[in-house]
Amino acid sequence: MGTSALTTTGKQTMSDVHQVLTDDRDHVFHSWSAQAEITPLPVAGAEGCWFWDYDDNRYLDLASQVVNLNLGHAHPRLVAAITQQAERLCTIAPSFANDVRGRLARLIAERAPGDLDKVFFTNGGTEAIEHAVRMARQHTGRLKVLSAYRSYHGATSGSITLTGEPRRWPNEPGIPGVVHFFGPYLYRSPFHSSSEAEECQRALAHLDDVVRMEGPQTVAAILLETVVGGNGVLIPPDGYLAGVREICDRHGILLICDEVLAGFGRTGEWFAVNAWQVVPDLITFAKGVNSGYVPLGGVVLSQRVAATFAHRPYPGGLTYSGHPLACAAGVASIEVFEETNLLERVRRLGQEVVRPALTELAERHPVVGEVRGRGLMWAIELVRDRQTRQPLVPFAATGAQAEPMTRLTAACRANGVWPFTAMNRLHLLPPLVIGDDELALGIKAIDDALSTVDTEVAA
Amino acid sequence: MGTSALTTTGKQTMSDVHQVLTDDRDHVFHSWSAQAEITPLPVAGAEGCWFWDYDDNRYLDLASQVVNLNLGHAHPRLVAAITQQAERLCTIAPSFANDVRGRLARLIAERAPGDLDKVFFTNGGTEAIEHAVRMARQHTGRLKVLSAYRSYHGATSGSITLTGEPRRWPNEPGIPGVVHFFGPYLYRSPFHSSSEAEECQRALAHLDDVVRMEGPQTVAAILLETVVGGNGVLIPPDGYLAGVREICDRHGILLICDEVLAGFGRTGEWFAVNAWQVVPDLITFAKGVNSGYVPLGGVVLSQRVAATFAHRPYPGGLTYSGHPLACAAGVASIEVFEETNLLERVRRLGQEVVRPALTELAERHPVVGEVRGRGLMWAIELVRDRQTRQPLVPFAATGAQAEPMTRLTAACRANGVWPFTAMNRLHLLPPLVIGDDELALGIKAIDDALSTVDTEVAA
Ligand SMILES: Cc1ncc(COP(=O)(O)O)c(C=O)c1O
Ligand SMILES: Cc1ncc(COP(=O)(O)O)c(C=O)c1O
Repeated sequence: MGTSALTTTGKQTMSDVHQVLTDDRDHVFHSWSAQAEITPLPVAGAEGCWFWDYDDNRYLDLASQVVNLNLGHAHPRLVAAITQQAERLCTIAPSFANDVRGRLARLIAERAPGDLDKVFFTNGGTEAIEHAVRMARQHTGRLKVLSAYRSYHGATSGSITLTGEPRRWPNEPGIPGVVHFFGPYLYRSPFHSSSEAEECQRALAHLDDVVRMEGPQTVAAILLETVVGGNGVLIPPDGYLAGVREICDRHGILLICDEVLAGFGRTGEWFAVNAWQVVPDLITFAKGVNSGYVPLGGVVLSQRVAATFAHRPYPGGLTYSGHPLACAAGVASIEVFEETNLLERVRRLGQEVVRPALTELAERHPVVGEVRGRGLMWAIELVRDRQTRQPLVPFAATGAQAEPMTRLTAACRANGVWPFTAMNRLHLLPPLVIGDDELALGIKAIDDALSTVDTEVAA
Repeated sequence: MGTSALTTTGKQTMSDVHQVLTDDRDHVFHSWSAQAEITPLPVAGAEGCWFWDYDDNRYLDLASQVVNLNLGHAHPRLVAAITQQAERLCTIAPSFANDVRGRLARLIAERAPGDLDKVFFTNGGTEAIEHAVRMARQHTGRLKVLSAYRSYHGATSGSITLTGEPRRWPNEPGIPGVVHFFGPYLYRSPFHSSSEAEECQRALAHLDDVVRMEGPQTVAAILLETVVGGNGVLIPPDGYLAGVREICDRHGILLICDEVLAGFGRTGEWFAVNAWQVVPDLITFAKGVNSGYVPLGGVVLSQRVAATFAHRPYPGGLTYSGHPLACAAGVASIEVFEETNLLERVRRLGQEVVRPALTELAERHPVVGEVRGRGLMWAIELVRDRQTRQPLVPFAATGAQAEPMTRLTAACRANGVWPFTAMNRLHLLPPLVIGDDELALGIKAIDDALSTVDTEVAA
């Protein structure tokens, strides 16, 4: 072990940051990146909605890290729960019964819609998708799964095949039996609609067509993000989810709602689907369930799907299913949500603060094509021309083509906020515990940064 | 939250155990199980190599939970590391540089063979496999992956297809491009060999044939468990791994060693492959890296493979890659290994204690066909007839067919040890910190339990 200068505790010094950067460059392989072309910011500390580097540059986190940090950094209740559980029992095999695992399962079941009352725990989002799809295939005895274009479901073989955006392309060919369809997206309607109601009706007709052409009796499940996250904060028009449910029911197809990003408060609901009173057969979750303090995800199953595996073994599993330390953080998180009335606050902030602020900002910035969202899940879609709606940067742009977005990101960071950007959009996804002042500060920083790309708009 | 009687801390009472069992039955969906046919033991506490239920029945854990608990339960150093890191920083996005993430990556790189010096972190074993395969496919531009029969690689779509045992069957069809081959297994030689040397040479000839028939230029990687774990503790004969390496080199195929189970001390080496001085291109790990105190896994990459992604984005990732809390437990674990000279102790226990004890026991029990292993990774293979080597229960037996194994498991538990059993085998896989007395006690309990199945042997 020898001479390492780095201690994991204690005061940070300049030699620390050198070691951090050297270790990172030499030994850490980063997600989704060209390793030689990134310069990862060394994070020295974090609290609440803020994190800072070793030069004490502080950033307000408008991305909630990877949209997982719903309760912010260093939440005392979550830290205490982890500390206490670490002293009791960190890990136990999935085959045992464990108090905190069972308790979290119950708390989740109590908040899930309809008869969804059994929880299969995983380590994160992609495993939740993999297992939900397995459950649907086993339950129906069918192979095909329909999922939406403009979606992200994770990076293991099944989930990346189900994903409906460019990150799938280099990973093909994927698993068999996946078919993509178009979901509703009025601002760029694939159906040439001119109203929400029309978009809803046409999107359902399209899905119905795809199901018919694929052969309804071959389709195990329809998988969708209840509210599409990383691909644009696409809120389904009223009636859409109920219509999908109806298509599923007509053909014995299961409905899987991916709430890895949208669940646990992001939209102001325990599960985003609750806002539309629709009951899926399976819900996937992760991220917000415990703010990612310990890796955790899972699937909530309806009684009907669970019953399939009452006397027939479920053919799947993982070493850390129902990890006690992860579950303890989940229990504490749900308690904090309850005690602070957090869901109500998120709904109010979305409706009374963010919506008016972004609407006003959209009027002033010609580069803004549309703002949309609910709760603390918002997208600002940027265009070169409001008439034609030509995106600020082309679909799946990289390098020079993406320059205006790179410039926008840099401007946000220079203004002390850490944004979430994707394609031609800037998303606003702060921790749900963000204070009123912090939220105002974040929106002001975005406002200023947008000025640096207003110049791209055709005169 | 209301009236729940269950507190996550404090003294256990009988109402606790009732609540634990009720929550589990009503709300927890278990891995690999027919949900109505299991009676999960409610675990009340655990320390070192022991855990106990609410009636204070204590069990010596000879399975290390899911073969992950290399340092035992409640290790003070790991608990302290988690507590300290929880107070500093639980989670940070993969795109940042983080001290403890970089430090663990460096510590792993220093212990990995050859030029394997970059680490991509995941949450567990199956994700490690998925990413290693993606890296190999991207690096070579080829699709096919060859993996061994009698192997387990995880339960996401890619890993379960690569798996070479019955858990794959209900999950077919899987990902495209997977071909299975037979590895060496002298006791039940697929090649009709009569010596280790012959088995080695014939297994290599077979693999060479498969590669030739599949088309070498279509094969991205050969994936194997360095020492096969759950499928029988199959130790490769000397020369086998070097031979596979040579086949790979001849055709530009990458060698992926799955050390999710065998790595981090199980065989008395940091990486099991180190014992044969062979350098794979990619190593997958999980479990023992931090004893599963916080979910963690990963891939160690050679410089050559990593260089592929210097200027071309790596098309994969996950929300919790390089999770600080998980990495802190990993750093502490490596420190404990070093400070207590644990690897040396494991090698010594394997060679001087377990090998002679099991060899002696095999002589006394007619039901024992073979014992094999190294370090603290052993299998006792049970047969109805030593001459014909007919397995005690048929391959992939369930229900009544598996009865003798069920009886054996029950006898072990009645003797106060928690065994790992699979098919016709009983494995000995205790925490690496097991004391000499505990190990003797465990072997004695197995000894006694074996008597209950000796009666199955043909007279
Ligand atoms: C909607 C959705 N599903 C699944 C995932 C995959 O989750 P993970 O990265 O934890 O595997 C994500 C991650 O961003 C997501 O946003
Ligand atoms: C050799 C091997 N590879 C991969 C895995 C999968 O690991 P996980 O259950 O963490 O996904 C296992 C788990 O037992 C394993 O033994």
